[in-house]
Amino acid sequence: MTVNHFAELTIQVPFYDLDPMSIVWHGNYVKYFEKVRCKLLSQINYDYCEMRDSGYIWPIIDMRLKYINSATFGQELRCVATLSEYENRLKINYEIFCKKTQKRMTKGYTIQVAVNIKSQEMQLVSPDVLLRKLGVKNEQG
Amino acid sequence: MTVNHFAELTIQVPFYDLDPMSIVWHGNYVKYFEKVRCKLLSQINYDYCEMRDSGYIWPIIDMRLKYINSATFGQELRCVATLSEYENRLKINYEIFCKKTQKRMTKGYTIQVAVNIKSQEMQLVSPDVLLRKLGVKNEQG
Amino acid sequence: MTVNHFAELTIQVPFYDLDPMSIVWHGNYVKYFEKVRCKLLSQINYDYCEMRDSGYIWPIIDMRLKYINSATFGQELRCVATLSEYENRLKINYEIFCKKTQKRMTKGYTIQVAVNIKSQEMQLVSPDVLLRKLGVKNEQG
Amino acid sequence: MTVNHFAELTIQVPFYDLDPMSIVWHGNYVKYFEKVRCKLLSQINYDYCEMRDSGYIWPIIDMRLKYINSATFGQELRCVATLSEYENRLKINYEIFCKKTQKRMTKGYTIQVAVNIKSQEMQLVSPDVLLRKLGVKNEQG
Repeated sequence: MTVNHFAELTIQVPFYDLDPMSIVWHGNYVKYFEKVRCKLLSQINYDYCEMRDSGYIWPIIDMRLKYINSATFGQELRCVATLSEYENRLKINYEIFCKKTQKRMTKGYTIQVAVNIKSQEMQLVSPDVLLRKLGVKNEQG
Repeated sequence: MTVNHFAELTIQVPFYDLDPMSIVWHGNYVKYFEKVRCKLLSQINYDYCEMRDSGYIWPIIDMRLKYINSATFGQELRCVATLSEYENRLKINYEIFCKKTQKRMTKGYTIQVAVNIKSQEMQLVSPDVLLRKLGVKNEQG
Repeated sequence: MTVNHFAELTIQVPFYDLDPMSIVWHGNYVKYFEKVRCKLLSQINYDYCEMRDSGYIWPIIDMRLKYINSATFGQELRCVATLSEYENRLKINYEIFCKKTQKRMTKGYTIQVAVNIKSQEMQLVSPDVLLRKLGVKNEQG
Repeated sequence: MTVNHFAELTIQVPFYDLDPMSIVWHGNYVKYFEKVRCKLLSQINYDYCEMRDSGYIWPIIDMRLKYINSATFGQELRCVATLSEYENRLKINYEIFCKKTQKRMTKGYTIQVAVNIKSQEMQLVSPDVLLRKLGVKNEQG
């Protein structure tokens, strides 16, 4: 069964994200990744609140960012998140482009795993609730 | 009865707090205020966790910052917090100095009020727990 | 002559702006103020880059924030900036509302003064460039 | 020739770095990495200002973070940075430990390359200035 989930949004670089070189400080891209990841998770009805209500939190255990071009004040960035793995963990890939030139600015990924809130145990297999949200398992599944 | 509480600490300006003028972005002083306020509250054994355990949260309802001189990368800042009011609300004054020259960089204040966690009601008078922590009321008080 | 400048925009509260009470950390409103201030300044063609090109920077010398209601994850906030003074300094007032309920969440102001980049001198009267941008002085003024 | 450079410092988790789970938001570790990296670079007399004065900036082109345990309010974190590569690029490894239990919390790396400020060209080999700072090349080298 094919799962093809992605989200995108536009971020206009705010002044407070700039560093002394007048470019976006590298750590701020973590926020851009999170914004578009939240949109992706919201689209499948599994945002932060719904995660918690389902009995799981999904901490990030691994994150990578590659910086290709630097962004400046007011620049519009098209941020894309694509679901890459979901069976044992949630891997999401990111690409950030200059909206105007289509030049790629940054890419990366995050990996999250489910942790049962009650037992505090990390799940080696994604819980059914995620599979149902993604439509790869039906309600009886 | 006299209450004379203050705290101080040194912050060395990190790179990530700088803006395109290579000075600390004005919003980051809110963090410096918080750091030294937390130290003051910790000194009287009433930090964030102890507040919550006492049944109250203390949201900030008013904050003011005045900027006198700008700080740069690596500069050591002496941050001072002084308790100013406590009977109906918690008012703390702040002053930030260049450690080397003693020049004043920033000053301001924050005002917090107690909110009862259960009832979600704002308290018009500071709860006894604060007065005991400050030593203005004894255990039987 | 009447000057009536304001700007507004909507911010959806991101996860990374939340604190342990699951509400927006009070310091993050400084960013919301800046975002809508930048929009106001951009509308009069006097954004950060244009300021620098005009030979002036406009540091904030005074800022106040009053917190009325707390905002939560995903909440849409309508942020409004209104020009309040411009003759000797730039004073901007802010109000932040819940977009859905129209309830007021936060208000405040910032005061900026012009500093001549070359001489590093603070200007006691706003330079003509601001008055022209605001339309209160013509090109020959 | 052996090059063995490392730096360490202690960070006490501030309130403003916490997320709704009352743990450090994953993006804030980028700041902890930067703080100890700046200390390492300062130790070899090649901090941000000295880089710029040497005619180069050193943007981060790749960063990875692995999250092992989560940190909470007031926890003291021992942050260690170790130089790993320097010939063609600057690779620094990081490890963050709980100071009390010695438990490892986070690890990761950053990779930086030199960019000539004048020509804006990325350098495929580290410029001599870095090698001299590291003591692997003498002044005449």
